[in-house]
Amino acid sequence: MDRLTIIKVGGKVVEEPESLNALLDQFKKISGNKILVHGGGRAATDLANRLGIETKMVEGRRITDVKMLEVVTMVYGGLINKKIVAGLQSRDCNAIGLTGADFDLIRARKRPVKEIDYGFVGDVEEVSTRELRLLINENAIPVLAPLTHDGNGNLLNTNADTIASEIAIELSNHFNVYLFYCFEKKGVLLNPNDETSIIYDLDSTLFKKYYQDGVINAGMVPKLENGFLAKKKGVKEVLITNAENIANGRGTRLV
Amino acid sequence: MDRLTIIKVGGKVVEEPESLNALLDQFKKISGNKILVHGGGRAATDLANRLGIETKMVEGRRITDVKMLEVVTMVYGGLINKKIVAGLQSRDCNAIGLTGADFDLIRARKRPVKEIDYGFVGDVEEVSTRELRLLINENAIPVLAPLTHDGNGNLLNTNADTIASEIAIELSNHFNVYLFYCFEKKGVLLNPNDETSIIYDLDSTLFKKYYQDGVINAGMVPKLENGFLAKKKGVKEVLITNAENIANGRGTRLV
Repeated sequence: MDRLTIIKVGGKVVEEPESLNALLDQFKKISGNKILVHGGGRAATDLANRLGIETKMVEGRRITDVKMLEVVTMVYGGLINKKIVAGLQSRDCNAIGLTGADFDLIRARKRPVKEIDYGFVGDVEEVSTRELRLLINENAIPVLAPLTHDGNGNLLNTNADTIASEIAIELSNHFNVYLFYCFEKKGVLLNPNDETSIIYDLDSTLFKKYYQDGVINAGMVPKLENGFLAKKKGVKEVLITNAENIANGRGTRLV
Repeated sequence: MDRLTIIKVGGKVVEEPESLNALLDQFKKISGNKILVHGGGRAATDLANRLGIETKMVEGRRITDVKMLEVVTMVYGGLINKKIVAGLQSRDCNAIGLTGADFDLIRARKRPVKEIDYGFVGDVEEVSTRELRLLINENAIPVLAPLTHDGNGNLLNTNADTIASEIAIELSNHFNVYLFYCFEKKGVLLNPNDETSIIYDLDSTLFKKYYQDGVINAGMVPKLENGFLAKKKGVKEVLITNAENIANGRGTRLV
């Protein structure tokens, strides 16, 4: 099977022109098939503020009412996605921007209301990659925005880390998939104040221990849980790293 | 050659849920290969207003500074495009939303500043449909937003009528292309107050005469000029009609 690298980048990296350009320069260097999955939460919060729409978060998840859904559709599907696509095209990378609605790529179910009503937030139900693989085989580079749809005409807001792992799992039936979660640090750190204290190999036992000891903070947990799940379900390698290291593959490897 | 129908719809039709649903129901009925090209100017003006950004138009064309470029990228590339895609997917039409930056589909040049500085407005330079045709041959339905790019990482705002005619012209090398411009009326009217006074066949001599006589108003002129150009350059049929008649092909035919 061919190699396929999936890079997930958070909002901070893609929202500033300088860090976005640095990321795209590194991304271009990755050889072989590749996919970029992006977030954009800060930009969404910023637009919401400018429109007088209040941002409500519960455990890092955005409450997405009708108005907020419009905001994230505009920011994730339009502003950020198309900026990345244009930036990659200018680097001779044949990018194509997609949401989960395009090609019916990711169908999701509106999250059931329990203690919290998350609104138009989708939990992934089905990933269909036929057209995506066709494009990859034509050397196209998919750029995925964190939006899905329910099959009834509604878009849904879906966590970008989850989108990356779900796509990685499905595509591991067809490619040797390397999934890189890219954030500000060079990897998971033993000491958050010491950039050199990278944990190079992290297994799930160690992860639980570090989490209990408070070494790994809450924000990293969904990323790592998604990562371990992907690894378990056939993804070849999962790496936590920063934008500077996506091309050389250094960082925290989940084992 | 296979038949391909390209439908261009203006902002008004796609911005209201009711008229959008009616349009998509009709669009679904069109048999064979099809593409939808949409506008969204009113929604862009509305978002700009809400953000306190002033909308300046010159002869129906939007002056697009950096802030307005962000607005149209969000509204055309995100909000409207993805709503249409999700709506078509719910009708079992395998839609994929695209701008001119995706696949390097439409490369444009920033309009040179003469008397007026239009800002980030692009005049089409090159249309590359290799991947688009690949998708069409897989029964995908492209949904095109009126944005292009300059190949240097900049998105550009480009008139949707022009996008429709340029795409139609290029694809007429590969398909029998039927290009339908869809607006509020059933066709070009001899008397704007009489909905039954449709001009069924319009040639360029008659067009000039009617324009000089004031029968055809200024707003229709770019649409008709684009249409006659497309016809001259190999598009099989150009029709001016409304959403209700796109499936049966009634309206003003350019001859």
